[in-house]
Amino acid sequence: MFLKEALILWNTDVVSMMSPLLAAVTPEYSPIILSGVLLTLIVIFIASKIGSEVARKFDFSPVLGELVAGVIVGVSAFHLVIFPEGELAGADSLIMTLVQALNHLSPAGIEAVFESQSEVISVLAEIGVIILLFEIGLESDLRQLKEVGVQAIVVACVGVALPFAAGTVGLMVLFHVAAIPAIFCGAALTATSIGITSKVLTELGQLQSKEGQIILGAAVIDDVLGIIVLAVVASLAKTGEIDVTNVIYLIVSATIFLIGSILLGNFFNTSFTAIVDKLKTRGNIIIPAFTFAFLMAFLANAIHLEAILGAFAAGLVLDETEERNELDELIKPIADLLVPIFFVTVGARADLGVLNPTVPENRAGLLIAVFLVVVAVIGKLVTGWAVFGIPGVNRWAIGVGMIPRGEVGLVFAGIGAASGVLDKPLQVSIIVMVILTTFLAPPFLRVAFDRAAEVPAPEKSLGE
Amino acid sequence: MFLKEALILWNTDVVSMMSPLLAAVTPEYSPIILSGVLLTLIVIFIASKIGSEVARKFDFSPVLGELVAGVIVGVSAFHLVIFPEGELAGADSLIMTLVQALNHLSPAGIEAVFESQSEVISVLAEIGVIILLFEIGLESDLRQLKEVGVQAIVVACVGVALPFAAGTVGLMVLFHVAAIPAIFCGAALTATSIGITSKVLTELGQLQSKEGQIILGAAVIDDVLGIIVLAVVASLAKTGEIDVTNVIYLIVSATIFLIGSILLGNFFNTSFTAIVDKLKTRGNIIIPAFTFAFLMAFLANAIHLEAILGAFAAGLVLDETEERNELDELIKPIADLLVPIFFVTVGARADLGVLNPTVPENRAGLLIAVFLVVVAVIGKLVTGWAVFGIPGVNRWAIGVGMIPRGEVGLVFAGIGAASGVLDKPLQVSIIVMVILTTFLAPPFLRVAFDRAAEVPAPEKSLGE
Repeated sequence: MFLKEALILWNTDVVSMMSPLLAAVTPEYSPIILSGVLLTLIVIFIASKIGSEVARKFDFSPVLGELVAGVIVGVSAFHLVIFPEGELAGADSLIMTLVQALNHLSPAGIEAVFESQSEVISVLAEIGVIILLFEIGLESDLRQLKEVGVQAIVVACVGVALPFAAGTVGLMVLFHVAAIPAIFCGAALTATSIGITSKVLTELGQLQSKEGQIILGAAVIDDVLGIIVLAVVASLAKTGEIDVTNVIYLIVSATIFLIGSILLGNFFNTSFTAIVDKLKTRGNIIIPAFTFAFLMAFLANAIHLEAILGAFAAGLVLDETEERNELDELIKPIADLLVPIFFVTVGARADLGVLNPTVPENRAGLLIAVFLVVVAVIGKLVTGWAVFGIPGVNRWAIGVGMIPRGEVGLVFAGIGAASGVLDKPLQVSIIVMVILTTFLAPPFLRVAFDRAAEVPAPEKSLGE
Repeated sequence: MFLKEALILWNTDVVSMMSPLLAAVTPEYSPIILSGVLLTLIVIFIASKIGSEVARKFDFSPVLGELVAGVIVGVSAFHLVIFPEGELAGADSLIMTLVQALNHLSPAGIEAVFESQSEVISVLAEIGVIILLFEIGLESDLRQLKEVGVQAIVVACVGVALPFAAGTVGLMVLFHVAAIPAIFCGAALTATSIGITSKVLTELGQLQSKEGQIILGAAVIDDVLGIIVLAVVASLAKTGEIDVTNVIYLIVSATIFLIGSILLGNFFNTSFTAIVDKLKTRGNIIIPAFTFAFLMAFLANAIHLEAILGAFAAGLVLDETEERNELDELIKPIADLLVPIFFVTVGARADLGVLNPTVPENRAGLLIAVFLVVVAVIGKLVTGWAVFGIPGVNRWAIGVGMIPRGEVGLVFAGIGAASGVLDKPLQVSIIVMVILTTFLAPPFLRVAFDRAAEVPAPEKSLGE
């Protein structure tokens, strides 16, 4: 005990003597940055697991739990996982305070370490969302779409166009939001969550019903549309101006990129299989798969679209290979480890304090949040009435089934926050919209299908 | 085509107008940093796969191939993966030059992006080596050691003490190297590579022979000793002084940390299994396992030891749980993805140019490299003669079997380079030592066992 105390004292002296010098030399910080990153990851992992388990217990999506857990450990509450945004500094972070105490860092040192570790966590979250979209791409079966056909396309298009238009115009006209953030928010309303919807449909035994198939098909299509819209909108946000030429270029290039990758899919697939077959060392499937996914993400980024569009396209392509099932299994643990970093940090970055109703300045932000939720619900609800030519179809069920937003909506909030295009009230409003639509949809979906069950509908014959 | 060109022109103007402004604002760089990280990871993945496949083809360890591939893409040759060390700047990096061209970055901007992306890749490499040691821990079966018993312990201790003492003293006396770097190099000579040795023994059908069992047992023990030595030496390097109190504190704390975790293993194991059993959402095994591994790594770091010691202890502990086999499977793809980042960057950081024999100043460095290789070979060769009480044992085979260094030696080189304690010639000498011992051991091991086969030895009865 004596030795250890003496040593700590001695250490403190040496380090405090050296700290003005250390502040200039980055390599000296490297083990401290690693400490900060490890501690942040530990907090993120524990929060994500508690959040997802609690959510599951109350029958909500695990993603929702991770998001709420992020809010709790983040800037809104415990200040464990925060980022150098606005007026936040390293001294505000509980983790940084602990790291500082352990390593006897100077105030300047703590800010340098805070900046670096936040940068690393941000990139890990971005890699997490790239892997998420890669996985979604791998799980989206484009051939399935042919079966549900035109109805799903109509529902998807109405469900993308309506909330997008109503959201954007409403924000600009009613709330005087500038064009780019308004478009960004409108776009965030477009994509239905495949994960949440398909889970609830499975529980209700309605996945194979006509309604279930239309909902799922439309959810896949509006995910694709949503990701294209995101690529376009995020690129607009980067330049900060809306230029008709630019918009046309972006829409065309995003569409060409996605359709091009699918058309070239056969070539990619045979090359991929040939390479995997030749490799005999460890990682023979996972390394080529991630090289391809990261390459597509980089290419999408290089032509000024979003990295996630590339990862999604890579997933769609590799979905068709022979190694598909093995790849699915191998990606799972990697996604399980990295995707929660994305969801937790999205929640952690969201400062719910900006919607605190007791502060008068927040009223406008609150109204925006309410407006976005209303548009999000109504904009998807009406899609049920876009279905035509199927007598007796449960329009309520289709409309309600399209309501829950999820991963893609959060991707909008995350990218909007990281790029600085969304101010805090808008960013938080999107997150509140995702949380509420996800909370509301499952119970309402049960009601909608129950009502239909009272009418003796010929469900079996609709099943195919 | 016209539209796109017009747009690029327009983009260039806007961006170049904005670039002095951008240089101050980090969030604006975030997609560019992501681009740089993705491109670097793509290069690392491709290099690691080509390297490991070529190595395998010529019957060498895949790790060796990854290391050599790192040298080729790194500072010694193609300048694709480099780090801001010495006089290297972003403009020297081919990847950064491409990223700059794609994003019209200012010279100041490119350096900021280069710093950030290098930081991210460094932390990813550090996480890679943490996962590597976690996996090695999971694979080290401590119970097996009881069977080979005293002989393996003697061989291990001789094989650690001799190269360590000869290397350290030799460097200080013959080459006038300062004490801390000399100790660091001496310590880098201690650990035999379990992976390489066990692979060659398996190929020769000698894994179950008395010699094979002694070699393997000793390799496991000297890995543990090597990691303790590394924890102590790296901590000395941080403070820059050798203080007897400090050395004693470090040796005692490293030993207590490792033995303490193993003794508490039962408690950790039941807690881990209880937690895993309760969790029902995705990642129910992998997230608790990595939380534990990162927590142990953080704790080791917090008491001024090395993060990898904690990860190794976590692996040893979880090796005893029921989920062990499932965990092994889940960790594999994660390790396959992240561990090559470590090996490739160790190679990439090593500037082989400092050993170029045509430059007169390099002669001293070259002599050091030769000296280290000789000590590394002889220091392990003599361990065969430390075996006692087994008549007819193949002493040559045991000695040669202990020669190959691998992962742990590279961990020394990597940590030594990152912490700045090793100058370039010493760092490169360690890497050359690892490469040469790994190249030499397999053919010599075949000869050693073949010579024994000429004498009609009762091999079967020695098998148990």
